[in-house]
Amino acid sequence: MGAEGISREELQLAARNHGMPLEALRYDITPAGLHYLLIHYDIPDVDPRSWRLEIGGNVGAAVELSLEDLRARPRVSLAVTLECAGNGRALYEPRPVSQPWLLEAVGNAEWTGTPLRGVLQEAGIGTGSVEVAFAGADHGVEGEVEQDYERALPLADALGDDVLLADEMNGAPLLPQHGAPLRLIVPGWYGMTHVKWLRRITVLAEPFQGYQNVRGYRMRATEDEAGEAVTRIHVRSLMLPPGIPEFMTRKRFVQPGRCQLEGRAWSGSGSIERVEVSEDRGATWADAWLGALPDSPYAWRRWSFDWDPLPGEHELCSRATDATGETQPLVPEWNVGGYRNNAVQRVHVLVR
Amino acid sequence: MGAEGISREELQLAARNHGMPLEALRYDITPAGLHYLLIHYDIPDVDPRSWRLEIGGNVGAAVELSLEDLRARPRVSLAVTLECAGNGRALYEPRPVSQPWLLEAVGNAEWTGTPLRGVLQEAGIGTGSVEVAFAGADHGVEGEVEQDYERALPLADALGDDVLLADEMNGAPLLPQHGAPLRLIVPGWYGMTHVKWLRRITVLAEPFQGYQNVRGYRMRATEDEAGEAVTRIHVRSLMLPPGIPEFMTRKRFVQPGRCQLEGRAWSGSGSIERVEVSEDRGATWADAWLGALPDSPYAWRRWSFDWDPLPGEHELCSRATDATGETQPLVPEWNVGGYRNNAVQRVHVLVR
Repeated sequence: MGAEGISREELQLAARNHGMPLEALRYDITPAGLHYLLIHYDIPDVDPRSWRLEIGGNVGAAVELSLEDLRARPRVSLAVTLECAGNGRALYEPRPVSQPWLLEAVGNAEWTGTPLRGVLQEAGIGTGSVEVAFAGADHGVEGEVEQDYERALPLADALGDDVLLADEMNGAPLLPQHGAPLRLIVPGWYGMTHVKWLRRITVLAEPFQGYQNVRGYRMRATEDEAGEAVTRIHVRSLMLPPGIPEFMTRKRFVQPGRCQLEGRAWSGSGSIERVEVSEDRGATWADAWLGALPDSPYAWRRWSFDWDPLPGEHELCSRATDATGETQPLVPEWNVGGYRNNAVQRVHVLVR
Repeated sequence: MGAEGISREELQLAARNHGMPLEALRYDITPAGLHYLLIHYDIPDVDPRSWRLEIGGNVGAAVELSLEDLRARPRVSLAVTLECAGNGRALYEPRPVSQPWLLEAVGNAEWTGTPLRGVLQEAGIGTGSVEVAFAGADHGVEGEVEQDYERALPLADALGDDVLLADEMNGAPLLPQHGAPLRLIVPGWYGMTHVKWLRRITVLAEPFQGYQNVRGYRMRATEDEAGEAVTRIHVRSLMLPPGIPEFMTRKRFVQPGRCQLEGRAWSGSGSIERVEVSEDRGATWADAWLGALPDSPYAWRRWSFDWDPLPGEHELCSRATDATGETQPLVPEWNVGGYRNNAVQRVHVLVR
């Protein structure tokens, strides 16, 4: 089963970072306060009136924009599924020690803001630029380095069509915990890229050497290797736990007879093409019914499955496949940081 | 330090129930999504259009009210600090096994709705009534009993001046996870009493025998005794962790020189009369400055303290005293359910 013997430090993180209870998979758009939340340091106290976004580095002219300036620019709204790169970390064995996510680090919100590309183009991207770094106002110590939370993107990704400087979530101003007054949205990428409390954008002529790109968020089999960067969300499906729960164990009880299973599936690399369900721990699979493609290519897709179980213990699994042909594995690729665990979910159900 | 060796079952609860990150003590009113959240079973899927509140039992005439009916009645708004009765559970040694709260199970929201008393009086309270039971739409199994979440109040408490049937939180319709479309608000009581997804009120001529009053939420030194009921919130103060955090350990770093500590204090039994701070693990105490009494007698009160530390390791404590003279203990009263741990908070700080 894994995830035993959680330390006090892990619990401290679990107590302040929020998962999305899986019954909230029922909502097309995750309501405020149910979306997952991972905050590296503290939620900063930002006054939106004095706040400015600085755009500098290898640009024609450094720019400072107020929230009003940004809100006067062209606006786009887009539903985007965000998932923490560490979702599923506590299910790895041995368990990498950090925020101990089980499966709840996900949400699908509608983000509104202005395209980043226009803002960068107005500042003037200098010759030889290769990356763009984004710094937030949250500040702390990690890996013995005192830092603003800061992440960089390759220039081509930063200039992507749908990258937003978002000041609204689900039609309302950003909540403090989601990055008020402004956060970066990079559809299809894991959550660490969507820098919250954004206050500084730096165009770089050399690759960024900051902690969150060079040391954090890398796929490493041992502590010593440099590792591959964690980037886009790998394909995953999750199921609304059927029936009713036992308070403490979260074990599910379902009555005999037809039971509709349902859930959501998503991928950062292409649309969801298939979802399958297994009633025998992944030995055999049957196709689930797929809901309509969502209006946004970055939003999760609904699926459902008619299940007609016999009384007794069952373990249900679901797995999704995206347009690139990538399918969820039964066994995830263990790594030092505990990232990118998109192994199939296993839901224990007692039919009685 | 305690809180080591958390089990997978406890982690599952911590992943779905939300704490309030303590830096959110800075807000007078806790923003949506930062308020703590404890859900016994699942967030139910309630359609507010077909939802009705039933009022029955020992009444003159059973009543069914729609959300429109309730919203057409007299309305009251009130800021109320809610705290889970299990807040601090994971700091007891030995640790009672349930939702493993450290200190974050609190929030202060503005609730709007109609007084319960008027609704009960219109239904007509029958002779010999002693309690009123409140059932929510969340349904599950606990202590081997399948149940709707249901709690009862003594009739005199149910008829209290400020008990509300609330359909708004912070000026917006209730969010699903906070009990939409209607929850009970009983200012001054621990969270278990503020029944969410309320759908049935039953006036009783005999004391309620339901699980959540008779078995859950009782102060018991051993499993065998009946125990005293958990009712009102005991006095507590919490501090915004000063300085900046280390990501993993949450240890705080503060620069030498003057540092303003601040926090909030509350009690379910009377106003906060005093808050003290200790820099020496509770050996000596100095008075903190108290903010103005809040407009609502049920809202937390701000406090602050000018701290001028020397470099080195420090452990800060705060303790509050309410108008009844009750003060936070240094050592809490251990009990089987892990309730009512209002011991002083201990904040580790490195000044450097």
